[in-house]
Amino acid sequence: MTFATAAAVSESFVPLSVPVDAGRAAVRGEFATVLTLRHAGARPVRLRYELVGRADAPVVVLAGGISAHRHVAANTEFAEKGWAEGLVAAGRALDPASLRILAFDFLGADGALDVPIDTADQADALAVLLDHLGIDRLHGFVGYSYGALVGQQFAIRHRARVTRLVAVSGAHRPHPYAAAWRALQRRAVALGQLQCAESHGLSLARQFAMLSYRTPEEFGERFDAAPEVVNGRVRVAAEDYLDAAGAQYVGRTPVEAYLRLSESIDLHRVDPAAISVPTVVVAVEGDRLVPLADLVGLVEGLGPFGSLRVLRSPYGHDAFLKETDRIDAILANAFRTPGENA
Amino acid sequence: MTFATAAAVSESFVPLSVPVDAGRAAVRGEFATVLTLRHAGARPVRLRYELVGRADAPVVVLAGGISAHRHVAANTEFAEKGWAEGLVAAGRALDPASLRILAFDFLGADGALDVPIDTADQADALAVLLDHLGIDRLHGFVGYSYGALVGQQFAIRHRARVTRLVAVSGAHRPHPYAAAWRALQRRAVALGQLQCAESHGLSLARQFAMLSYRTPEEFGERFDAAPEVVNGRVRVAAEDYLDAAGAQYVGRTPVEAYLRLSESIDLHRVDPAAISVPTVVVAVEGDRLVPLADLVGLVEGLGPFGSLRVLRSPYGHDAFLKETDRIDAILANAFRTPGENA
Repeated sequence: MTFATAAAVSESFVPLSVPVDAGRAAVRGEFATVLTLRHAGARPVRLRYELVGRADAPVVVLAGGISAHRHVAANTEFAEKGWAEGLVAAGRALDPASLRILAFDFLGADGALDVPIDTADQADALAVLLDHLGIDRLHGFVGYSYGALVGQQFAIRHRARVTRLVAVSGAHRPHPYAAAWRALQRRAVALGQLQCAESHGLSLARQFAMLSYRTPEEFGERFDAAPEVVNGRVRVAAEDYLDAAGAQYVGRTPVEAYLRLSESIDLHRVDPAAISVPTVVVAVEGDRLVPLADLVGLVEGLGPFGSLRVLRSPYGHDAFLKETDRIDAILANAFRTPGENA
Repeated sequence: MTFATAAAVSESFVPLSVPVDAGRAAVRGEFATVLTLRHAGARPVRLRYELVGRADAPVVVLAGGISAHRHVAANTEFAEKGWAEGLVAAGRALDPASLRILAFDFLGADGALDVPIDTADQADALAVLLDHLGIDRLHGFVGYSYGALVGQQFAIRHRARVTRLVAVSGAHRPHPYAAAWRALQRRAVALGQLQCAESHGLSLARQFAMLSYRTPEEFGERFDAAPEVVNGRVRVAAEDYLDAAGAQYVGRTPVEAYLRLSESIDLHRVDPAAISVPTVVVAVEGDRLVPLADLVGLVEGLGPFGSLRVLRSPYGHDAFLKETDRIDAILANAFRTPGENA
């Protein structure tokens, strides 16, 4: 195979030559550029991406939550598990044998960009990335959570470059209650930073975030055991799980990345009427971060360009990552529907 | 008037002599005793109470959330506002002109009892307090939130001493999701203690608790403004409110009181079938801490002794403190229904 390595494509565009049958083959790259950010002016940034699938296939961008990254699924080049394992796979709507799947690390994800980052900035970064890769137009943009917000901005700011949008569990603006929840997570980080317990604070923030990502139904089923008194302190059944979730997150997330991307969700505000790309909005009933009513508001604002799919899941905001079969069915349907100029 | 002062009744029982028309008159007292606690053995404690209303009237105990205390409402002796202002008032179901209202500081509320405290311990403390005051039997026990848990325990452990129970927004056991939420609040306190920023940690814990006490509906209405970027950081609309809530709480709450009473909620587990006192269970649809389904479970377990009232309120778990007219109507009805041996 003739894949460029990440090092080889760094700083310059290397045309890709991918065998037609190499559906799972992939290439990574990164390059430096300067972006003008909405809240912080011109800043040097590095853009990092991974592209998997046939070179001649239509390109679909897949963008996830603030903890997601460019590696969506294991492939022949990069064997580690990705964050959308099971959704990007043979036989799925996002099958690398028939589509080229592009994913990228969000601006700020490396912790090196310690300024307010807007979802508009992410959309502009993607446009620069597409130029870099010689991709004129996307067959689709599938965004989940934060990725859905970025997709909305991309549809507004780079209208001519995308045929359809699937926006899962992300509204045109954050709900004030969810924004307050995130603000308190950021305060937990700040408390940790007071005296060199930065990772402790980040862990606590992540644990609070987990409560917003999941549902009481799931906790009710999993953590039904009676509390224990350990060393004179009460310890409830979910604490082992929360400890593990916090520790795992701290091990892979720079504090500044967490803070700036969390803020970025709260900065997001777009006018749905400004989106004129066919858009499938997917809502999860029971999502405690993104209420169904807000996604109904988004669809109403989209007018003729919007349609709504609702699913109920005990996984709440995390349903996209957990309800693989049901999400895949929704994506398959979305890609069967003709996009504009598809 | 002939009221004993708090100092005068301290350490000893002073029979009360209250004029028949002095419905708003009140007496406070406190005394030392030794209680055998479920998780910590025999401990010296101080019990503090306030009693308001006619000496010859039936006695009703009113017990609130973990932040509540013995002063339920302003009266002629103690003019400061209480935590149940508006519910204990002339013309209300809890009118000191027709009932004697007894309230007490929870064990641990002074921060001096730094051990696991069970709701059973609170019920036993109340029994000791009733002995001290020469009160054989309660006309009723009205408990809200933590107070509802204490009421359940009192009905089980001191069956002969209470005629009816009204249990508002408190189930027979905590929901695992709510328990996890509280555990993380306690972790915020622990993080603050690690940083020599104890009040900072307590403030953050309280702010997280506020999210569980209120609802997204209320936040959606109150905090709809766009975020601001202040000193390079994103600040969302609810943060001023959360700051104030945290600061106010820190000013009046010992850290150990908060930790031990928060734990106490999570230690609570009773068998509803063990309660054989007529009980009105009041549930608030939309309460994020105590789901309606759990209160339905409580009522089912109560069998012939239970009845359910449900109200919907944007104030969620705090509805008892906010929906004064509707709660009063429920209480009036509960007290019109004959209790056993009433």
